[in-house]
Amino acid sequence: MPKVTIAQNILAANDSIAEEIQQSLTERGIRTINMMSSPGAGKTTLLEQTVKRLREKAGIAVIEGDIETSADAERMEAAGAETVQINTRGACHLEAHMIRDALTQIDLSSINLLIIENIGNLVCPSAWNLGEDCRVVIVSTTEGDDKPAKYPQMFAASQIMIVNKLDLLLYVDYDVEKVKRQALAINPHLRIFEVSCRTGLGLDAWCEWLLTFATHPIEDAISIGRGAI
Amino acid sequence: MPKVTIAQNILAANDSIAEEIQQSLTERGIRTINMMSSPGAGKTTLLEQTVKRLREKAGIAVIEGDIETSADAERMEAAGAETVQINTRGACHLEAHMIRDALTQIDLSSINLLIIENIGNLVCPSAWNLGEDCRVVIVSTTEGDDKPAKYPQMFAASQIMIVNKLDLLLYVDYDVEKVKRQALAINPHLRIFEVSCRTGLGLDAWCEWLLTFATHPIEDAISIGRGAI
Repeated sequence: MPKVTIAQNILAANDSIAEEIQQSLTERGIRTINMMSSPGAGKTTLLEQTVKRLREKAGIAVIEGDIETSADAERMEAAGAETVQINTRGACHLEAHMIRDALTQIDLSSINLLIIENIGNLVCPSAWNLGEDCRVVIVSTTEGDDKPAKYPQMFAASQIMIVNKLDLLLYVDYDVEKVKRQALAINPHLRIFEVSCRTGLGLDAWCEWLLTFATHPIEDAISIGRGAI
Repeated sequence: MPKVTIAQNILAANDSIAEEIQQSLTERGIRTINMMSSPGAGKTTLLEQTVKRLREKAGIAVIEGDIETSADAERMEAAGAETVQINTRGACHLEAHMIRDALTQIDLSSINLLIIENIGNLVCPSAWNLGEDCRVVIVSTTEGDDKPAKYPQMFAASQIMIVNKLDLLLYVDYDVEKVKRQALAINPHLRIFEVSCRTGLGLDAWCEWLLTFATHPIEDAISIGRGAI
């Protein structure tokens, strides 16, 4: 089965680079999160709001992953974060070597929080470690309330789930409690935030958690990521 | 570059199976569409509405692609279509050999329209031919109006674009005309429908087109798919 062997080799090589990245960032006191979701769940808007709220309290850099365009990176720079755009030119997920290259363009001495926005895809990114300390999956109330059951690997591989677009709950058939039950059945350690980037609901709690995560010693930070705090 | 060679071989093998499927279905007078979108854009709900409206007018079978669960197939059977569920167990797209296997479970003598619902993923499915006559990409008004520019390959590879969830336009920042311009800049032959599965808006036009597509000779059907009619 050469196909499988090669796929495993590629993932193993990726894990090895990811481990180097995580060690290097940890030594510098930088915490890293990897934000993943379907296209259009609101990753970029959530990050804009997050950067605006935390830019005076933490040194933040953002790595923006997109197949094409630099629109998201421009939005992130406008929000006030040093940003590097990765364009994958067709590839459906970020890989660790792309992060390693992007990091050469960031002044690491000035940051303590690195945020990676992955390609919009609820499947493939979950298989690729990027050296992050914490994975965040974002779902939104307009996507239908069956997503954890239908895309379980993403929820199994994450430490945080954010339910976004709560402001639209009145207009859609979406049962937040059902989604939480589904997600926790797959991963009982998930920490869950419910937010609306439009009204600001829940953003204080999310940003407070993220700031705590970014400023704690790494052992505690990982525990926080796992929902222990 | 063994990695690239193998990837090309896999796609070539897939194309070969897809061609067999398309020939076999064409000989039986069956038209096939491949429905693709992000998770949660509304493929399944649109298909429920479509099957309910067309079940007396056409012989319809549905192949449901999901990573896990048979929930969508159950919804489709309840709507009145013979349905086969494919669970990919982690894989991010359907491949032609999966369709070939699924077809053995469908009574092909009783249908003239085969609808394939692909895995929710705006990236990977576009690279895999399934033997379809027409590809349909669905976007929704809650996903943000930058998706064609950010995921161009899907729009380049499709003949139809459906803009869904028009009922939510009042509550989101979404410029339908911008999305249409972006999509047509990538693919000037795209035929576009605007619908709301909640209010029924636009569903008659879509179903009328689909019925015409299903009942025309194949040359015309492909032209219809390409927006020539």
